Parts: sequence; structure tokens; C-alpha cells
Amino acid sequence: MPSAVDVVVVGGGISGLVAAREVAAKGRSVVVLEARDRVGGRVLNHELADGSVIEAGGAFVGPTQDHVLGLCDELGIRTFKEHTAGDSVYVSRGIRQTYQGTVPPDPLILPDAGRLQLQLDQMSKDVPVDAPWLAAKAAEWDSTSLHDWVGQNTVNPDTAKLLEVYLQPLLGADARDVSLLFMLWYLATAGNEQNPGTFERSSGTENGAQDSRIVGGSQLIPLRLAERLGDIVALSAPVRRIEQLADRAVVTTDRGQVSAARVIVAAPPPLITQIDWAPLLPPKRLQLLQRHFMGALMKCDAVYEKPFWREKGLNGFGISDVAPVRVAFDNCPADGSPGVLLAFVGGATWADWGNRPFEERRRGVLEGFARLFGPEALEPIDYTEHDWTHERWSYGGPVANPGLGATYRFGDQIRTPFGRVHWAGTETSTYWSGYMDGAVRAGERAAAEVTAP
Amino acid sequence: MPSAVDVVVVGGGISGLVAAREVAAKGRSVVVLEARDRVGGRVLNHELADGSVIEAGGAFVGPTQDHVLGLCDELGIRTFKEHTAGDSVYVSRGIRQTYQGTVPPDPLILPDAGRLQLQLDQMSKDVPVDAPWLAAKAAEWDSTSLHDWVGQNTVNPDTAKLLEVYLQPLLGADARDVSLLFMLWYLATAGNEQNPGTFERSSGTENGAQDSRIVGGSQLIPLRLAERLGDIVALSAPVRRIEQLADRAVVTTDRGQVSAARVIVAAPPPLITQIDWAPLLPPKRLQLLQRHFMGALMKCDAVYEKPFWREKGLNGFGISDVAPVRVAFDNCPADGSPGVLLAFVGGATWADWGNRPFEERRRGVLEGFARLFGPEALEPIDYTEHDWTHERWSYGGPVANPGLGATYRFGDQIRTPFGRVHWAGTETSTYWSGYMDGAVRAGERAAAEVTAP
Repeated sequence: MPSAVDVVVVGGGISGLVAAREVAAKGRSVVVLEARDRVGGRVLNHELADGSVIEAGGAFVGPTQDHVLGLCDELGIRTFKEHTAGDSVYVSRGIRQTYQGTVPPDPLILPDAGRLQLQLDQMSKDVPVDAPWLAAKAAEWDSTSLHDWVGQNTVNPDTAKLLEVYLQPLLGADARDVSLLFMLWYLATAGNEQNPGTFERSSGTENGAQDSRIVGGSQLIPLRLAERLGDIVALSAPVRRIEQLADRAVVTTDRGQVSAARVIVAAPPPLITQIDWAPLLPPKRLQLLQRHFMGALMKCDAVYEKPFWREKGLNGFGISDVAPVRVAFDNCPADGSPGVLLAFVGGATWADWGNRPFEERRRGVLEGFARLFGPEALEPIDYTEHDWTHERWSYGGPVANPGLGATYRFGDQIRTPFGRVHWAGTETSTYWSGYMDGAVRAGERAAAEVTAP
Repeated sequence: MPSAVDVVVVGGGISGLVAAREVAAKGRSVVVLEARDRVGGRVLNHELADGSVIEAGGAFVGPTQDHVLGLCDELGIRTFKEHTAGDSVYVSRGIRQTYQGTVPPDPLILPDAGRLQLQLDQMSKDVPVDAPWLAAKAAEWDSTSLHDWVGQNTVNPDTAKLLEVYLQPLLGADARDVSLLFMLWYLATAGNEQNPGTFERSSGTENGAQDSRIVGGSQLIPLRLAERLGDIVALSAPVRRIEQLADRAVVTTDRGQVSAARVIVAAPPPLITQIDWAPLLPPKRLQLLQRHFMGALMKCDAVYEKPFWREKGLNGFGISDVAPVRVAFDNCPADGSPGVLLAFVGGATWADWGNRPFEERRRGVLEGFARLFGPEALEPIDYTEHDWTHERWSYGGPVANPGLGATYRFGDQIRTPFGRVHWAGTETSTYWSGYMDGAVRAGERAAAEVTAP
């Protein structure tokens, strides 16, 4: 590790690596300090027995995610469409139905769900992506839990249950945990400058946030970025202390100290408060960060010789009211082999299932897949799972969620530099916050800040 | 520092010191590791120019706080009644009124306030102090912000404003930041085994939580405890890492390592997650801790030759709808000299005023005192303030508050030992959580756990 550079980047996820790349492109010296012994943060490939690759972490990309898609192009990384040919499956109140399109065939829920979506979309237009705290109704919307608002705006309680299928993978949390304002902002950010975010784009597969995946696995993005950056990426270098002096910042890691004119911190909020800051983080920023918690999420994948569901005319997408498989995706590699089914186990479902013995959870997941796609699901050739709450350097996943009141009262601190310190990480993005695209955008913005003339 | 003891206590606040005392009384060897260069945590004396003492942190004690009062007795520490002789002052919508008793003379608010108090008291009886997550309506009550519930159960919006006067000093937070369940639990804990908590005891001065203060300042409690413990209290020893091995735990501080059979962690939740845990904290506990945030609170004191308000028949207690002085207390030392007025600036009021220049805030506070008690307040002989959000080893004050959903979903983790590690700190108490009494109780309980046969 060098003893002094122009810019230190804290965190070797996509956001930090992109920031380092942009800084280096401007001719500044830079080092990336990564706590783990690998790059990628919440993006992590998992190799199957046959050498094919699936993802243990963030995986999907889609339209309007121009920044991550552009980066893939540049790095020679290809995407492929998430498999959608065939029917989806909906299991509710013991009844299994297949359906096409985006709306589950549930006449008891449809009127509520349609109105809910319309309302959320309309209200989200009043939330500025770069300043949700300035929404006219910010105080009110940030004081109300999404749970209460949904309850007040639906007739059938099952509508709220259906929403869990969307929220638990999205946030690793539930409607009671977040405010209406945060939800509206999250929807507003599911787009780009030309195409405002919508519930459909956020929740959808085709043309939505789950439209496509990365050939070879999404971790190729940070891996290739790191490869190009070379030895300026220091692994196993957790940052313990950041001290700001009159003329420089000093960053202390387990592998020694680095001085820099500027620091970009590209880590999720709950990890930022663990650093020993001297001087202390500004109190309002400290309030904002403390009021974020990492979601709780695990991904459970069952592997089969082939995607048996496709032969039955099913696309591998399923929704169920029976835990632990509340939502399932076809997670096969690009060439469709082997067959892989993916279940997200997040939020309340994680709270119930995350601590159970491995065998019990494995059985529950396989039975859930069988309920949706047939008994073949009970006999996988492999089963693998990844629980992000067990990760020392993530503390959870997929994102950090602000508690009620945090956005309205302290949200304006999110990108405010602190002396020599600037902020990246997907949580700081104004579009596709929580996604790989947001990570890229945030890294680019932070790099622009520290290299501005 | 010894290299090995029976029990390591992390944190030299009242809770940690009490735990150490109880452990030592059982003949076990113990060391207290305190990050600061002083004991007392969120309890801190401030010496005035004439040598008299007021508190910068936790100060009040009252009936049913038997554990801290018993400890005071034992340590030869005396209490005195908070001054209540005379009228209180109420400023609202530009009108100033004096009143006696506990209820502000506001006919527009009275009906709402009365009903609210009754409802809260009744509902709090359904919340078990040792297991609020088991309340019959726990899921519902933890999904609703206190703000929304108050809005739905009052007619006059000013009632909610009046509630801020109580919440901001109590939690350093506002009704939008916490759930109804947490509020009900907090009320339920404002008592003891024989006397269930009530809103009146929680909010009240005479016979309430603000009944009395400590002669010489509340920090006498930790100071005397530490004095008796002697050199087993290690200051400036922030704990960086806790590793649990097969046969012992190893605690790493800036002053070296200590091995122990058991560890008692007596620190607020947001500081616990900063420790490098090996193995990592159990995921559910990590969720619980991450979902707590320290409140934001400062205490502002103006000092006068004498308590001029007493001569005017005022008791020094005041409520106002004009920030920054939303609530004021007589804060004179036991002998009434010098005169001291105290304002709590917390939650939203802190968010507005905490970052303003010192001179502007000082002026605002003095004007606030003048509005309540007369123009003499504008000419203090001294002015002092303490902002707990600036404290590296507190991150805020007075307490850590759980976000919505945290208690219901993860609350049952609060006292669950983690291998060799046990939990103290006022936040883990089942009575007077958030108070010095809760700190004593929690320390006693944790000590009993680690010394049980």
C-alpha cells in the first residue's frame, strides 16, 4: 500500500471501484481499501459444481439502468434476458393457478392492487429523487409506516400480504419497517432522468428491474474493474479510523495507514458509523446513518439437471403465500443449464426462517418450489444459500433502509461532504438506489466531486 | 490492566460499574473497560464557576426507582426534591399563562390530552415490561408510528405539539420516529414490580420521574462506585474487538487485551455494533441493534445570581410552543444557589437548533426563558450547554430508540446471552429503561447471570 495518494476510496464494491476508476482516469493517484479478501461487496458470484455461475447477491439489471449497462458494455460483459417464456404460478389460500403477464389472477386482490399501484405511482411523482425531504407532504409521508398507509388504502388484508412478495426481496424488510415517503422515493428512483420510476418498472421482470442478468455472473463487473485497477486495490484492509488533519486525511487500516487529500467512503450506512472518526461525523449525518438498518435477506437456490419447469410451460416465476418461498425466480445461467430456481427469503420471512436449522430450511424451500412448479423440485442435484445477515462487512442486505422520520429530518445529509470526505455507495444514488446501477452512479458522482477543478 | 479475569465489563457507566460491583462482591475477579477518560457514560456533572454542580446528562430520580435510590443510600449520596413551589408557566399561541398542578390550562387541548393519557395508560397495561413483543396487539402497535396513532386519536393538532414537550427530552426523538408499541412499553416500564408505570409517573415532577435530584450531581453515583472498585476500572480503554474462543473470550482495547470467562457489555446499542465481533453477533441481535438509534438531545443551562423566578412565585417549570425552549426546569443546586434554568433541546427541536451558531442558540434559549419567566432571564452570569450527539462514546442521548417493527420482530433478543457475552445497559432493563434506575437494574441482572452457579 502506498503511504500517500490523492484519493483514498473506502470500500471495493462496485461503487468504490467505479469511483477509483474515474479518479484514476483524471490522472489522480488513488487506492481502494477493501475490508474483505475479495471485491464486489454485496455482489458475489457462486460457482456451481459444473463450473457455471449464479449469483449469491445482487444480480438483475434492466432498462433505464444505463450506467451499469454502459459499464458492462465497456468491460465486455454481456447480459441476457431473464427467462419469461411460459406461465407464472400463483399460490394463495391453498389454490394454485398459472397466469401470464404481471398481475396475479386474484379477483379478491385485483381491485386493491390496481388502485394501490396507481396511487403509489402518482404520489411518487411528487417526490424529488434528489431531495425526497422536500416533497410537499414529506413530513406526513415520513411519519406514516407503509404498512399503515396500505391498510388505510386497501380493503382486502391479503393485498398487504401480496406486497410482502415485492418488499422482502427489494428491501429485506417489511411495510411496517419503512415510511411511505421512503417507499415513494424508492419507486421514483426506479428510472432515469428521462423515464420517471414506476411501480411496474421496480417490480417487473420483462422491461423491469428484473429484466436481465449478467452472463458469467454480476460479480464479473467488480472483478473486471479491479483487474483493470490492478494493485491499487488493497484487500483485507478494513478501515478502522479516518482522521482529518489541516492538510490531509489519514486513513488507518489493519494493513497500515494512507494519507490522502480526499476520501470517498463507498460503504453502507451501518458500516460507516463503525469507523473511528476524528473529528466525529457531523451529528446530523450521524443521526441519519444511525437511523438506517441493513435489510435481512438470504438467497436460496436449488439446482436441477435441467429447468424442468420450462418443459411444462412454466417460466419459473412464482408467488406464494406460504413461507419460506414467497417469491421464486428462474435463476438458470445464460445457456439454461443447469436448471436453477431461486427463492428470496427476506424481512419477516427471514426472521422466521433464517435461524432454522439448514436441513429444515432446505426442505421448506424445496417444498415451496414443488408447490409452485411440481414435485420434481424436491430432488435437486444441489442446494445452496447465502444469508447476507451473516456477512461481517455488509451486516445484511440488499440495502440499508431508513427508519421513519430519518429521510424527512436528516435526509439532506446524505451526499453532503464532510471536510475531505465524500460519499458514494448505492444508498447515495438518486436513481436506482439500492441497485448496481445506483452504485455506479454514486461512484461516478463522488469521483466528479473530488476531481472537480 | 490484568491479562485475565473472570469477568470483563465493557462500559463504565452506571450499569457497567454496578455489574462489576456485584460480580466482585461474589468473589470473582473483574475489570471494567471504559472508552472515555472518565466514568459515568451519559451521566456527567458540570461544575459552575462558584464550585456548585449541575448535570450535563441524566439527573432526575423519583419514586419506584428503588434500585438507584437504594444505591444512593448505600453510597452516602443524598437526594433533594426538584423545586415545585409556585406556579408553572404555559406559553401557547402567543399567550402566557401560569398554572398549578400537572395540566396546562389549555381548554382547546384538555379534552384530547385527558383522553390520550387515559388511553395510553390503559393500553400500556397490555404490554409486558419483560416482553413487549408478546402483547396481543404487538404486531399492529409496532407497525404504527406514535405520530399516526396520536393523530387518529385526537381532534386538535396542537395536542400532538404538546406531546413533543414530553417526548423530546424523554427520547431525544419525536412521535414520528417511534412506534406506538415502544411508547406503551416505555410507559409500562415507568414503575416497579408493585406499581405499574403510568404516563403521570413518567411525565411528572412531584412523585414522578422528575421528582428529585442528587445533591452534588448525579455523576457522584458512578464516581463513588468507581472509587470503591479502585484500579479495576480502566479508563481510555475503548473496546475494539471481542473474540469468543472455546475456553474464553478475548477482549481487545487500545490498552491491550484481557481474557475472561464471561463478558458483560454495558453500552448502548449503536456502540455495540461498532465492536469487531468474532464470531459475528447473531443476525437477529444484529438486526435489533441496527434498528436502534440514539436520540438527539442537548441540555442548555443559564445561570443567574439567584433563582429570580422563585421570588415571583414561579417554580421554574415551563412549557412553550416556541423553540428552542419547549420545556424548562428549575435546575438550581440543592441549596438553591446559584439560580439555574434548564432547557431540553431534543428531537426535531435539536434538528433545527443543534447546528446553529452557539451565539444564536444561546440567545434563543435566553429569550425562551425570558418568555416564560421574565426579562431577568436575558442577563445570566453564565450559560452552558451539552450536546450528546457530539459525544464519540454515546453517539446521542438520552437513550437508544428502536425503529418501527424492531421490538415486535427482534425485541426478544435484547437480553439473550451470546455465548460468553451478557448484556447490561439501561436499554436492557424491564423497569425504568432509559433511566439511571434501569441502568442499575440491568447491571444487577447481568451480574446475576454471570455469577449464577
